[in-house]
Amino acid sequence: MPVPHLSNVQNGPLLELERRILEAQPQIEHWFRSQWCAHATPFYGSVDLRNSGFKLAPVDMNMFPGGFNNLNTDMTPLAVQAAMSAVDKVCPEAKSVLLIPENHTRNTYYLQNVAALVRIFELAGLKVRLGTLNPEITEATELTAANGAPVRLEPVERRGNRLVLADGFNPCMVLLNNDLSGGIPPLLQNIEQNLMPPLHAGWAVRRKSHHFQAYDEVAQDFAQLISIDPWLINPLFASAGGLDFQSRQGEQMLADTVSDLLTRIRVKYREQGIEHDPFVIVKADAGTYGMGVMSVKSPEEVIGLNRKARNKMSVVKEGLAVSEVIVQEGVYTFETVEEAVAEPVVYMMDRYVIGGFYRVHTGRGVDENLNAPGMHFVPLSFETACLPDRQGNPDCPQNRFYSYGVIARLALLAGARELEATDPDYE
Amino acid sequence: MPVPHLSNVQNGPLLELERRILEAQPQIEHWFRSQWCAHATPFYGSVDLRNSGFKLAPVDMNMFPGGFNNLNTDMTPLAVQAAMSAVDKVCPEAKSVLLIPENHTRNTYYLQNVAALVRIFELAGLKVRLGTLNPEITEATELTAANGAPVRLEPVERRGNRLVLADGFNPCMVLLNNDLSGGIPPLLQNIEQNLMPPLHAGWAVRRKSHHFQAYDEVAQDFAQLISIDPWLINPLFASAGGLDFQSRQGEQMLADTVSDLLTRIRVKYREQGIEHDPFVIVKADAGTYGMGVMSVKSPEEVIGLNRKARNKMSVVKEGLAVSEVIVQEGVYTFETVEEAVAEPVVYMMDRYVIGGFYRVHTGRGVDENLNAPGMHFVPLSFETACLPDRQGNPDCPQNRFYSYGVIARLALLAGARELEATDPDYE
Repeated sequence: MPVPHLSNVQNGPLLELERRILEAQPQIEHWFRSQWCAHATPFYGSVDLRNSGFKLAPVDMNMFPGGFNNLNTDMTPLAVQAAMSAVDKVCPEAKSVLLIPENHTRNTYYLQNVAALVRIFELAGLKVRLGTLNPEITEATELTAANGAPVRLEPVERRGNRLVLADGFNPCMVLLNNDLSGGIPPLLQNIEQNLMPPLHAGWAVRRKSHHFQAYDEVAQDFAQLISIDPWLINPLFASAGGLDFQSRQGEQMLADTVSDLLTRIRVKYREQGIEHDPFVIVKADAGTYGMGVMSVKSPEEVIGLNRKARNKMSVVKEGLAVSEVIVQEGVYTFETVEEAVAEPVVYMMDRYVIGGFYRVHTGRGVDENLNAPGMHFVPLSFETACLPDRQGNPDCPQNRFYSYGVIARLALLAGARELEATDPDYE
Repeated sequence: MPVPHLSNVQNGPLLELERRILEAQPQIEHWFRSQWCAHATPFYGSVDLRNSGFKLAPVDMNMFPGGFNNLNTDMTPLAVQAAMSAVDKVCPEAKSVLLIPENHTRNTYYLQNVAALVRIFELAGLKVRLGTLNPEITEATELTAANGAPVRLEPVERRGNRLVLADGFNPCMVLLNNDLSGGIPPLLQNIEQNLMPPLHAGWAVRRKSHHFQAYDEVAQDFAQLISIDPWLINPLFASAGGLDFQSRQGEQMLADTVSDLLTRIRVKYREQGIEHDPFVIVKADAGTYGMGVMSVKSPEEVIGLNRKARNKMSVVKEGLAVSEVIVQEGVYTFETVEEAVAEPVVYMMDRYVIGGFYRVHTGRGVDENLNAPGMHFVPLSFETACLPDRQGNPDCPQNRFYSYGVIARLALLAGARELEATDPDYE
């Protein structure tokens, strides 16, 4: 796969950023090593990046990544090795794992992701079975993923403080691939097995604003390390709470927040000689799956939303009501594949980058959210690992993937700090 | 690459072994995990395997592997990830590493191996420089590997208890790719930096018989785990000491040892219905590089050796005199590539299998040592990682490589136990 084409000509600062990242590779890797000594690595994660040619930044970090099926299978051994390392840290004695996927069993692409995850952990030498929290599934149920792979879901049961399956399968580790948007089910509370990621990584507790607050610090430290302006890798953001989209409560305050942020972005654009229109993304502070997301170029746009827009903004997955939003600097996506907009997503397991893919979407603009419900993206997996090629240009595919892997790991590190800060048991 | 063809028809037991290994994969990986909790993994290692169709066994384990240049570069990311893990364990704060290669600077293929190692550790984010112990190299010297890669060697200096280079390069880790056949140089003794592998992994201390003693135990445990006859994965052996090939001292005792071992092998062959002639390999108990190796089918062959054979047997690399030998059950090599004999070599870093290759040699027989001086082998790198393919036959390339990776890791584990047993500081 050719690396997507950067369609704008204003790619000077990004090339410079990529060049600095490449040059500083030993310092960067050393810095990551020391960071991972101080902060426990999230079990796994994926990061949505945006590359505007003048800025390369994470816009979302998923603690329960789907889409493992979109990774290049040539790189499965990397994922397996990373999975071995991740399991070793949690429970070196683990023989088996109970994987709890999302409840939406009708998305056969998601089922393909589940099958891909099962395969990785089986190759790492674990017995893997799938336990579902879906109340509609009351007995073992065979489903079929989009690629034909069989996916057998069994209802999770609780025996004392352990999760088991009906036949007594009693694993020492429970792996969540369910982001708990609907809240933390009592079934999962206070279990004695190793539960990864922890419950407070779910959207019942997690807030995007906490993540990007942690990312602010990480970006600051990293920018100092390689002597760059942190803005080049960090989208500005602000939070707004106390909202009720249906009753239009908090609307003016939201408009003011949008206005302030647009002004801050405009200042940075002027400083950097960037001639695009700033925009911001308004999204639910908790939740995922691209519901409750708006792309906004002026404060007026959030005033007097029509019913459709209000409905869209007021709930996210599993009916979670939106009263808090994050207003995030929009980062243009100028990477294109045959004129279609492409957004890179990088996958990590333990501290390792194990691959990535581009979300390629023909129907959307450079300033829109590409992870929207019903969106039909074409996944285009990274062809090579995210390792630098010292002989290549800064923007050759491998080196671009290396830069992507570095920025994604910064977001992972922010995720680690975020989990520490929100850990109910953390001292 | 197609997996080499097993030319004999007697591959029933091996297919059965491979099948058992595949079936027991979760137990095997779990067992390895628990073993690595109890025993520190060697930093890196390579294992020479022999596959006779009725037996699959390690015949040598190298603690200072050369030949990294023969691995499939598609799998470099695996090696890099494993190197990150290995470095993390030794010294997570490491910024730089001093790599000390062998002294023989004229072997441009060996230099290519050095360049490949440098690349892996650079990609893992370390500054790597090469320090040589070769007294003939008194200033920084640029050499060129067989593939044209530049290799810059600098004399190692000692400042207090640290190894440095002339310009003050003072790494926190020293990586040996020098097997210390010539003894432990005073320069390396009592240094305060992390030295990997440790000095007692060098041939000045190491004995093949210690390794295979440790391997006996490992093979026993593993055979029990998957319910097989340990002989299927373990070559019988015996030691003989007090030899002086030049003065023919100890000759009769050696012949008796050979005779005993041949008898033991014959019993096993009869038991298993194998109709080949047993043979043994007599090799120096310390040392490497295939000098001091004889293939023997009857005890008489070691009596009254001619001058050439005596010379060959009496010294190994760096003029180390041979007074102790290991007499090891010879394992036929029935794997062939276009009628040439092929011997698999598996590479590991930390606990991970990172690849392998076949030594393919046209001029040698199925019962000879393929790692002989002046030997011209063609390396044929494994095309895939050593991960199982559950849909494939037990002997499809991937599954065969998985079995190879398992047996190689058993030898690595024996290496770990061996290093513990010989560690001067071990409690």
